[in-house]
Amino acid sequence: MRAAILRNGEICLDELPAPEPAAGQVLVKTLACGICGSDLHARKFGPGLSANDQIGGLFNALDFGRDLIMGHEFSAEIVEFGRDTKRDLSVGQAVCSVPVLISAEGRETVGYSNNIPGGYGEYMVLSEAMLLPVPDGLPTNIAALTEPMAVGYHAVRKAAATKEDVPLVIGCGPVGLAVIWALKRKGLGPVIAADYSPLRRQMAIKMGADVVVDPRETAPHEAWQKAAAWNEPSPVLSALAAAAAFRPALVFECVGVPGVIQEILLHTERDARIIVVGVCMQEDHFQPYLGIIKEISVQFVLGYTPEEFSDTLHMIAEGRTDLTELITGEVDLSGVAGAFDDLANPGRHAKIMVRP
Amino acid sequence: MRAAILRNGEICLDELPAPEPAAGQVLVKTLACGICGSDLHARKFGPGLSANDQIGGLFNALDFGRDLIMGHEFSAEIVEFGRDTKRDLSVGQAVCSVPVLISAEGRETVGYSNNIPGGYGEYMVLSEAMLLPVPDGLPTNIAALTEPMAVGYHAVRKAAATKEDVPLVIGCGPVGLAVIWALKRKGLGPVIAADYSPLRRQMAIKMGADVVVDPRETAPHEAWQKAAAWNEPSPVLSALAAAAAFRPALVFECVGVPGVIQEILLHTERDARIIVVGVCMQEDHFQPYLGIIKEISVQFVLGYTPEEFSDTLHMIAEGRTDLTELITGEVDLSGVAGAFDDLANPGRHAKIMVRP
Repeated sequence: MRAAILRNGEICLDELPAPEPAAGQVLVKTLACGICGSDLHARKFGPGLSANDQIGGLFNALDFGRDLIMGHEFSAEIVEFGRDTKRDLSVGQAVCSVPVLISAEGRETVGYSNNIPGGYGEYMVLSEAMLLPVPDGLPTNIAALTEPMAVGYHAVRKAAATKEDVPLVIGCGPVGLAVIWALKRKGLGPVIAADYSPLRRQMAIKMGADVVVDPRETAPHEAWQKAAAWNEPSPVLSALAAAAAFRPALVFECVGVPGVIQEILLHTERDARIIVVGVCMQEDHFQPYLGIIKEISVQFVLGYTPEEFSDTLHMIAEGRTDLTELITGEVDLSGVAGAFDDLANPGRHAKIMVRP
Repeated sequence: MRAAILRNGEICLDELPAPEPAAGQVLVKTLACGICGSDLHARKFGPGLSANDQIGGLFNALDFGRDLIMGHEFSAEIVEFGRDTKRDLSVGQAVCSVPVLISAEGRETVGYSNNIPGGYGEYMVLSEAMLLPVPDGLPTNIAALTEPMAVGYHAVRKAAATKEDVPLVIGCGPVGLAVIWALKRKGLGPVIAADYSPLRRQMAIKMGADVVVDPRETAPHEAWQKAAAWNEPSPVLSALAAAAAFRPALVFECVGVPGVIQEILLHTERDARIIVVGVCMQEDHFQPYLGIIKEISVQFVLGYTPEEFSDTLHMIAEGRTDLTELITGEVDLSGVAGAFDDLANPGRHAKIMVRP
């Protein structure tokens, strides 16, 4: 099969043997696979990571000296069942799956494994038990958005966001857009969103953001204060009942570069909850004193549960928000390398879909 | 009156006019006042802070070019009532108070104000409405521990610690000891505590810590894992139900120097809650990725509510834990400067009490 492979730090196209389904597994043909910021991170930072970094996680388990077929935001079509499968679905059925393959040896993350291919190849093997049929009528490239949208849905659930909250979303890349979508699907808001890119701000509005700002023109926390009708607590009140004097902020950090958490600590209000959804791979710096004097909480989040993934697929299929425009580009396998370069410019794209 | 004054970055003894109680205020004679790590911070970092630091909070409101009489962990005796006071208590009554003075102009923090003296002077003015009588039989130097112990009580309440938690306390200075005390007063545990100082480890045991370790000999997170009977989740389980596979850690950061939060992020387990009680005044560094892959939450805390302060005084008066040994030194006003120097060595002291 053909695949776009991360080899020696570059994405190249090559022919490889198709994978073979083991017991409980299914061979699928990849229909669509989104390119994720984490894939860009893996290419940029992965080869430089050493055991000394001690940060564990996905990338440390990988050997960047070996071939890697990434791609974990996929929809696919069932081609062939391995042994010991129930075969409740039919060959030809379009499916999604959490990117986890269970085997006798343990588990592999589909898209971050040296042993099995991810969605940037023509074929994958998936665990039959994890397959979710794509609901009738849902285009398969939209179904492939289940994974990134589930990240937003999970973040909103971890935040325990309620109708009392006025959420502020910093960064409207795919992660921020998924958070906005999930917030609005839960009926929450007003949602304030900030991004430097006009394209991304436009998409934030499409996802349902109520107030969208360019940080060059309007400080995000000022837009938040206005929307939240936030009032500086009086000095006397703050001495006696600071917590009750105003509504705490709920801020989603969806940028993932050093310095953003510090900026939020600096500008947000007392008792704010910061949900860190953007994945920052570098060392970061901050002033703990800022968090302390405001009694801020920071919840780091990652991924989703299988239930959240399934819920997300069904929410997408309900189609109350059109996600088509999130896909700003489509490439075949020969275009993956170029798409990685294009995505380095955050103003030009939201999601590029690979169609192997 | 005599007072130990922070003047040009040094603590010096001098004579000043006693303060005069305004409407609703009471003149009190300081009976005992503990030296807090924040006072050491104010002396060390305060004069170097500029408006450019933008961190706000107590110290930015101060003019370190002017005299400052610190001291906010006090007990005192009523000397004279100002006008418009109810006088429910009598002259001579021993009292505690949250270190906040309410006046017509707003509020002042007692001990961090250029306008009124704190507890390192012979006399203070306090708001009558904030006074709490020291319960009969409670020595006034122990009553002066209400403020630092309330910090621990507040931290434990903000953590929403339950009997399911196995709390790990990093650092057994006055803050860590207060946290241990509050945890045990709530009947929680086992409590694991870590400190390099033998004296502080001994005090941690006195406060009720169940397991106490020297980090040079035993890694705190390993002691925690043993006490929590923590088991590495199996790979398959972690894919499907990581959150349910083991008990999340609850870690209290009570050191307050750069690097400690990063160390905790590095070693603690998935879903851990970190409560930052130690006050770090310097810039700190960390790897967000560590927090992300483990979905850690970080709650910064500071201070206490007036209700928590009052509860703490009454819990101390119940006397189920003897706090006498927390006081490792007593000085008069002429000894404050030397006590500040002594406290720079964390191995020698827990709390030094000033007896003006």
